Amino acid sequence: MEVLEERIKKDGIVKPGNVLKVDSFLNHQMDPFLFKEMGKEWKARFHGTNISKILTIEASGIGIACVAALCFGLPVVFAKKSIDVPLDDSVYTTKVDSFTKNKCFDVSVSKKYLKEGDKVLIIDDFLANGCAVYGLKDLIEQAGAELVGVGIVIEKGFQEGGKKIREDGIRLESLAIIDSMDPDTGEIKFRH
Amino acid sequence: MEVLEERIKKDGIVKPGNVLKVDSFLNHQMDPFLFKEMGKEWKARFHGTNISKILTIEASGIGIACVAALCFGLPVVFAKKSIDVPLDDSVYTTKVDSFTKNKCFDVSVSKKYLKEGDKVLIIDDFLANGCAVYGLKDLIEQAGAELVGVGIVIEKGFQEGGKKIREDGIRLESLAIIDSMDPDTGEIKFRH
Repeated sequence: MEVLEERIKKDGIVKPGNVLKVDSFLNHQMDPFLFKEMGKEWKARFHGTNISKILTIEASGIGIACVAALCFGLPVVFAKKSIDVPLDDSVYTTKVDSFTKNKCFDVSVSKKYLKEGDKVLIIDDFLANGCAVYGLKDLIEQAGAELVGVGIVIEKGFQEGGKKIREDGIRLESLAIIDSMDPDTGEIKFRH
Repeated sequence: MEVLEERIKKDGIVKPGNVLKVDSFLNHQMDPFLFKEMGKEWKARFHGTNISKILTIEASGIGIACVAALCFGLPVVFAKKSIDVPLDDSVYTTKVDSFTKNKCFDVSVSKKYLKEGDKVLIIDDFLANGCAVYGLKDLIEQAGAELVGVGIVIEKGFQEGGKKIREDGIRLESLAIIDSMDPDTGEIKFRH
């Protein structure tokens, strides 16, 4: 998606350790107009599918998913990160490893809002090792719902998540795929 | 705001301890079309002010603020809750007590995204004791920015936050103000 790649080139900052800072428009300060363009793009790419619900994960996925949901005309649910998982059986819970935060956390979603019959599109800001996607997929499967596809803003093409998801036969629509980035020069190479 | 009050009456669940569960449309599952109506309402109510940025707090404020920001034509920043506050001086940090979670946490915002000259509208889902609003106000003041007003979805009118904010001369626009709610009958009384 050209407008997104241009924005990443203009405002993204490449840091050592394969870290890309895009917190000026994506995951701290947020540009809702860019989010709307992204939502329209996903809607076009997933045209003909019968998505009934969008699922994302807190925190930085929420704004993107909400604006995308407006474009799709659908409700959103966000999986909650929790230190204290409820002991009752009102939620589905799974574990997710975070690449950037280098730790594992529990995420959960209420059984009321993810059900058999739901056809779910996962939306998230970054795809690196794919742990968040597989965590959300696990919640969807626990609910007996169907995973229709995954919409990612920025896929780190040099990490294994995207490859794994595609090999597993899951439809993945990443709006920008980065093949390499150089913290010394700041250069970012996109896959086309 | 009538459409919001009707939705709260229809889908809100009153729990003991002055807890109102609205997680079917506001803060777990989210209805982006309702958020759009709320955004339009705040835009009308804050007409004539010169807001340059919307500030909210993770996690449940983010979706509401993003969709509202689309209506305003403005960027959003969300204050991050952090267990480990960065030790560098790149962020403004403050402490917030949570009413529902009954604990205190640090929130921070990058100095890059909150600056002198910014005219800030705070958006959040709930107002109870006002701690989140005062935390965000503190971040705004640390940045030398200006707090233009506060937009809240649901104000618990029987708690002290709203009264305190208004007495402090801060413009507060709550889209629904609850004067009382009864966990036995489920009845919710709105202030008009």
